[in-house]
Amino acid sequence: MDLTTTSWQERYRASGIYTLRCRLMDKPGILGVFMSEIGRNGKNIGEVRIVGVDAESVIRDVTVYCTGKDDVATLVKSLNSLEGVEVLDVRDEVMEIHKRGVISVQSRVPINSINDLRMVYTPGVASVCKEIEANPASGWKLTGLCDRVAIVTNGTAVLGLGDIGVVPSLPVMEGKAAIFAEFSNISAFPILVESKEVDVVVETVCRIAKSFGAIQLEDIGAPACFAIEDQLKERLDIPVFHDDQHGTATVLLAALINGLKMTDRKPQDASALILGAGAAGYAIARILMNFGFKDVVVYDSVGPIYRGRTRSMNPYKERLAQMTNKENQQCPLAEGFKGKDIFIGVARPNMVSREMVASMVKNPLVFPLSNPIGEITVQEAYEAGAAIAADGRAINNALAYPGLFRGALDAQAKSITIEMQLAASNTLASLASDGALLPNMLDRSIHRKVAQAVEAAWKLQK
Amino acid sequence: MDLTTTSWQERYRASGIYTLRCRLMDKPGILGVFMSEIGRNGKNIGEVRIVGVDAESVIRDVTVYCTGKDDVATLVKSLNSLEGVEVLDVRDEVMEIHKRGVISVQSRVPINSINDLRMVYTPGVASVCKEIEANPASGWKLTGLCDRVAIVTNGTAVLGLGDIGVVPSLPVMEGKAAIFAEFSNISAFPILVESKEVDVVVETVCRIAKSFGAIQLEDIGAPACFAIEDQLKERLDIPVFHDDQHGTATVLLAALINGLKMTDRKPQDASALILGAGAAGYAIARILMNFGFKDVVVYDSVGPIYRGRTRSMNPYKERLAQMTNKENQQCPLAEGFKGKDIFIGVARPNMVSREMVASMVKNPLVFPLSNPIGEITVQEAYEAGAAIAADGRAINNALAYPGLFRGALDAQAKSITIEMQLAASNTLASLASDGALLPNMLDRSIHRKVAQAVEAAWKLQK
Repeated sequence: MDLTTTSWQERYRASGIYTLRCRLMDKPGILGVFMSEIGRNGKNIGEVRIVGVDAESVIRDVTVYCTGKDDVATLVKSLNSLEGVEVLDVRDEVMEIHKRGVISVQSRVPINSINDLRMVYTPGVASVCKEIEANPASGWKLTGLCDRVAIVTNGTAVLGLGDIGVVPSLPVMEGKAAIFAEFSNISAFPILVESKEVDVVVETVCRIAKSFGAIQLEDIGAPACFAIEDQLKERLDIPVFHDDQHGTATVLLAALINGLKMTDRKPQDASALILGAGAAGYAIARILMNFGFKDVVVYDSVGPIYRGRTRSMNPYKERLAQMTNKENQQCPLAEGFKGKDIFIGVARPNMVSREMVASMVKNPLVFPLSNPIGEITVQEAYEAGAAIAADGRAINNALAYPGLFRGALDAQAKSITIEMQLAASNTLASLASDGALLPNMLDRSIHRKVAQAVEAAWKLQK
Repeated sequence: MDLTTTSWQERYRASGIYTLRCRLMDKPGILGVFMSEIGRNGKNIGEVRIVGVDAESVIRDVTVYCTGKDDVATLVKSLNSLEGVEVLDVRDEVMEIHKRGVISVQSRVPINSINDLRMVYTPGVASVCKEIEANPASGWKLTGLCDRVAIVTNGTAVLGLGDIGVVPSLPVMEGKAAIFAEFSNISAFPILVESKEVDVVVETVCRIAKSFGAIQLEDIGAPACFAIEDQLKERLDIPVFHDDQHGTATVLLAALINGLKMTDRKPQDASALILGAGAAGYAIARILMNFGFKDVVVYDSVGPIYRGRTRSMNPYKERLAQMTNKENQQCPLAEGFKGKDIFIGVARPNMVSREMVASMVKNPLVFPLSNPIGEITVQEAYEAGAAIAADGRAINNALAYPGLFRGALDAQAKSITIEMQLAASNTLASLASDGALLPNMLDRSIHRKVAQAVEAAWKLQK
């Protein structure tokens, strides 16, 4: 039996949670054999509950962590081969949770009398409409606009799954909305826009923008995402925030702030290599430069981005060329690693070797963030000499966006500025326990404190 | 003191509910004087609560029913003129209820562990996305689509207030969404479309339609509402239902079914005059003809709609001319009333006189539905000989649309057909208590039964 991986690590890798309903012969030793077989299959066990008993057997629900359907099928087959064991049913807990969606719209007011109805709806509601008509500014707080966010996607860059279309992306949008609701009392609603055309997406969102207090763009492919965000910001007077860019950048910077402190570095003296010039790469470069980094180089699949490069450029890479790479470095990736303090990967799995990490300065910071599998594993990065390594599971956007939006809405901000993002990063960094890069996102007070810092940053600017 | 109006009627007229916080000298007789003064102002009193006491006075919150700000201001002035009485604060309960909106989005899953997060969001959610990508039909129930409705408006015909714009209309849309949530567990969400152009509204709704399981159109002015509904029905494969048309028609028909029964009439023998050829007038004519009425004439501000009329027509009035008025009657309104069994008003306040009602057959049915003030008051209609009279407060759309949408969603219907509406009307009629036109909408079982009938009607057609 391999006892070198902890069950925590194994559970972390396993994205599927399954409950097996099993009939076990009621005889000493059977349960041990059964449990050992699960272990022999390399699976961890969660809850074990008795759900039925008859003369000869006990029926138990056993939760196991697997990577997917095939994986659990293999396990079930091996369990069914045991004497005295029968797997009656396999329940996919993730699918169960997502049935009918993970969010719902609720009335904040119980409607149990005609009086209730007459206040919530006609005729009472007419006085609220008239008040907003006479005094448009009152609309923000006499409706739910002050808590309401659209999560807009066209389904073109969903998780690591790519261009899967709008309805298959909906569970992700609902998941984000559930996090908004739970972490910062924001009413977020998925808006699926069926178009890959920048102009169509922009026009559609503008036409319905009055329904919301802020817009979160989500899982829209680069470079369309940049143009969509730029044009929406130009046309709308509410915050428009592409989470794959700025959410990631905000959380990564928070982790970096603590990583720099732990390794006694200052941003102005540290050099960083970013691999990936998509949504996240661009935003990370931008926030690092704004935070005070001087030496940042961005690589894409073609090589380093530099002033004068002609191959595979776009207006946003052009901006990167102007903003970063002060030495106009043009060497290939492996050479680019040499002597760098920080590596940030937002590209594709397994693009970085141990040798590359080993060629960085002593005690480098390594963030292979590509999802679900990083550019190099955290374990390999440590083995190659990283002082600190963290992947996409630790650098989780859900640490930033609930508080960023809560603060922006509370300030009735017209946009989410880089200063507000920096305030969020600094606050997150300050809330981490000693030795940790980031705080625990399940602690609701984290999001409240980020929101307060973000609101203050907007007010300071005004 | 006028004791001829009941407090129920007075409260019904009063759309505003105010809580007055009053300091009353703690002396026998003061409260009686205070209460009498409210009565002298013609106002009814709701709850009376003690909220504070000091050496010389008692502080009470007193709820009063008024028609609006000016009305309550007059009352407060008259109360403040009493000795030993001071109104400390006036709280507008309708405004209070609508602060921050009457709906919110909630997570259906508590997020209290990393495991919860990993099931609701990444990495677990990826398996749900992949399942929907591989099997598109699963998207309906692996997301919230099966419970999700857009309430779409462009704010052009809001209640009786007219073209007030999108944000001032939002409290109405939120009120409808709250009713959806409370009465039929539907997650409805207001979508404000900022345009008066039919094509723009249609295009915008089509682009985001994949976000919803059904579309409710609301408070869109005629005749744009007809074209918008027709084009959306043509282009989308989910139900599109303009509530101001079909919701009203469905509930009215339910009331008529019982009204006909109570007065021993049959639809094929009854004659009906509809005043108003806007959204509701058109839909009412259509549902009456489908229910079996043979003699229906529709009037608009110009006169009766007949085949060959050229003045002030549009394609929808043309359809009415084909569908109704079999005798091609062309006489003016007052004459049109003569000998009719049924009057239905969906036009403007005070357009109908007692004489008109008196010229109908004996024991006519009179439905002056214009909001908030009918074409004639119910009291006047009774005085002029109506057997049954009911206005817009009794014929409330909220009786129909929660169940209609619930049934359509449960059937995963592609549209809400006239047969489904008829099923809803018949069910509502059958659920009314003896002597009542309609059932009590606060009874949740009503909406469940409507939904079952609607679902069955869809399945029968297929």
